[in-house]
Amino acid sequence: MTLSYRKELKNLIPYKPGKPIEDVKREYGLDKVIKLASNENPLGCSEKVKEAITRALNDLSIYPDGNATLLKESISKKYNIPVDEILPTSGSDEMIDLIAKTFIEKDDEAIMADITFPRYAATTNMMGGVPVIVPLKNYTHDLTAILKAITPKTKIIWICNPNNPTGTICSEEEVIDFLNKVPQNVAVAYDIAYGEYVERKDYPRNSIDFIKKYPNVMVMKTFSKAYGLAGLRVAYTIANKEIIENINKVRGPFNVNSLAQIAAVAALKDEEFLKKTYKANIEGKKYLYQQFDDMKLSYPPSEANHIYVNIERDANETFIELQKRGIIIRPMGGTWIRVSIGTMEENRLFIKNLKDILNK
Amino acid sequence: MTLSYRKELKNLIPYKPGKPIEDVKREYGLDKVIKLASNENPLGCSEKVKEAITRALNDLSIYPDGNATLLKESISKKYNIPVDEILPTSGSDEMIDLIAKTFIEKDDEAIMADITFPRYAATTNMMGGVPVIVPLKNYTHDLTAILKAITPKTKIIWICNPNNPTGTICSEEEVIDFLNKVPQNVAVAYDIAYGEYVERKDYPRNSIDFIKKYPNVMVMKTFSKAYGLAGLRVAYTIANKEIIENINKVRGPFNVNSLAQIAAVAALKDEEFLKKTYKANIEGKKYLYQQFDDMKLSYPPSEANHIYVNIERDANETFIELQKRGIIIRPMGGTWIRVSIGTMEENRLFIKNLKDILNK
Repeated sequence: MTLSYRKELKNLIPYKPGKPIEDVKREYGLDKVIKLASNENPLGCSEKVKEAITRALNDLSIYPDGNATLLKESISKKYNIPVDEILPTSGSDEMIDLIAKTFIEKDDEAIMADITFPRYAATTNMMGGVPVIVPLKNYTHDLTAILKAITPKTKIIWICNPNNPTGTICSEEEVIDFLNKVPQNVAVAYDIAYGEYVERKDYPRNSIDFIKKYPNVMVMKTFSKAYGLAGLRVAYTIANKEIIENINKVRGPFNVNSLAQIAAVAALKDEEFLKKTYKANIEGKKYLYQQFDDMKLSYPPSEANHIYVNIERDANETFIELQKRGIIIRPMGGTWIRVSIGTMEENRLFIKNLKDILNK
Repeated sequence: MTLSYRKELKNLIPYKPGKPIEDVKREYGLDKVIKLASNENPLGCSEKVKEAITRALNDLSIYPDGNATLLKESISKKYNIPVDEILPTSGSDEMIDLIAKTFIEKDDEAIMADITFPRYAATTNMMGGVPVIVPLKNYTHDLTAILKAITPKTKIIWICNPNNPTGTICSEEEVIDFLNKVPQNVAVAYDIAYGEYVERKDYPRNSIDFIKKYPNVMVMKTFSKAYGLAGLRVAYTIANKEIIENINKVRGPFNVNSLAQIAAVAALKDEEFLKKTYKANIEGKKYLYQQFDDMKLSYPPSEANHIYVNIERDANETFIELQKRGIIIRPMGGTWIRVSIGTMEENRLFIKNLKDILNK
């Protein structure tokens, strides 16, 4: 083969997906496997979503509405923002790719935490940019250090609040102080994928309003977590019209599939489901906190639907041990794992097996 | 605003989606609107697909299998090719974007026809490359002229066979002769989105075999056309392992939604539906040919599910006239329109209204 690929590809590693549950069952001869690895909603999704999809089954041959008209109108009404400040995408994954394609030229810098969602760095590298990595402080975004890392080459700052995988947040006061100090020519991608799970009162509740005061901010929300639509791939970003217009230039014409659009519209109508999700998450979190405390394992308190915990034993080995027992979690660096908060049954099964493995 | 965007964006125009049918109904006070604009399958999709989706409604909260394991296995079995030579994507649109991100650096050239699928040029421009445009000859890819257009900067050649929008094909002999002459360091993206509709016997039926002999060829297939799954967004590309591995580096981790994967697996099992689709398309095509002949309108014979026809009157004006009457077609340049072959009822309605407008 003598084909030549873009030189940026040399530094890129293809994503290695986790094994499908069915493969894990087969490999280890297990009847039941639970997955606490991807921060999915253990309650599933709203019944309204299933009904809406069932009604749409005769229209699968029709292309999606490339403008996502009804979904944008639903979001517009719910949050009282103009439709031209809303851009739905095929999950936040697609938006992260689109933002890189909109802003990052060769050698441009994008600032992000050292332990955060890995797609921010991957898409920066993909466009030939340089990820500038700022260590977390107390497992939390160090906004002061991030401000200091800004250079004339900085194009984007990525803030994940709550942060994935640590579950930590920056307060409203901290975020506003930070946004006041970020130069207006640096874009801020403010990713609140886990925002619906936050308990703390000092979290910025109306972050969508940021875009009114700060025209350089993009607020990213998703239907994959609290709304329970990860399989369908749908998210959206709120930003001023000029940013949206530019991102639209690099977007594919039919980026959000039609069932995802229909599902998201239905999901937005079911506030009860969100409340149930929030409540179940807190119950599971309290249980897991107590168990980790009993086992004397440390973790930063989480404002998300997952907990980042130091199991004081090799995370990869423990991941494999748990998998053999039918439980899939996410090994992070060193002795840290990330576990999604599941149903109480799943949480108990996870703890029982973790205790066995750790001899606690 | 003082944000700076990638300079490539200056030359990009955001995709302007057509109006949703519901908007057209509202705007013109119509009860019924038919869309013959997007080459969708007028028969819908296989019943097996609807059943498979209904069975999957309780798993929407689970992320898609990022490896599309079952879909790749189904394709692998059907065409007897290894799974690592198959890459499913969110429609061919996503693959066109991924191919550009894999091969095109600044000032690299991509060769394509002047009248063909517009995403080839859009994604080349997006990556800072140069679309090298070779005019069609008799509405057909001019493979000789394309070979002459190759320079040291050429990275990709895009061949759409049958061509969208003209519906014309290159024969097996022509394609093989062409592939024999393309240098091995130039990638050929061979897009057979409409391949299932071809009647002519000299069309390359086993083009998937091209990748065995020509390691620079990618064969692109889609579920959006004959399989009737345009709304779900699913397509796939067959290419040698090295190309697939490189494209995987720029692919998002969960690019094909879970219902699309499930639907595609079910669709592959329903050969009967494909046969029905093929037959209905030929019936519609014959009727439209006859009507155009009666109206003395010229068109290149089509091997796809759409006809490119010269209405000898401004295409945009005629598009608007037809839309007012509840019929959406696609205006092309000048006096040319592209009309999708619909159900016989839709075809008759289109012809009746076109005759009215053209006073024929």
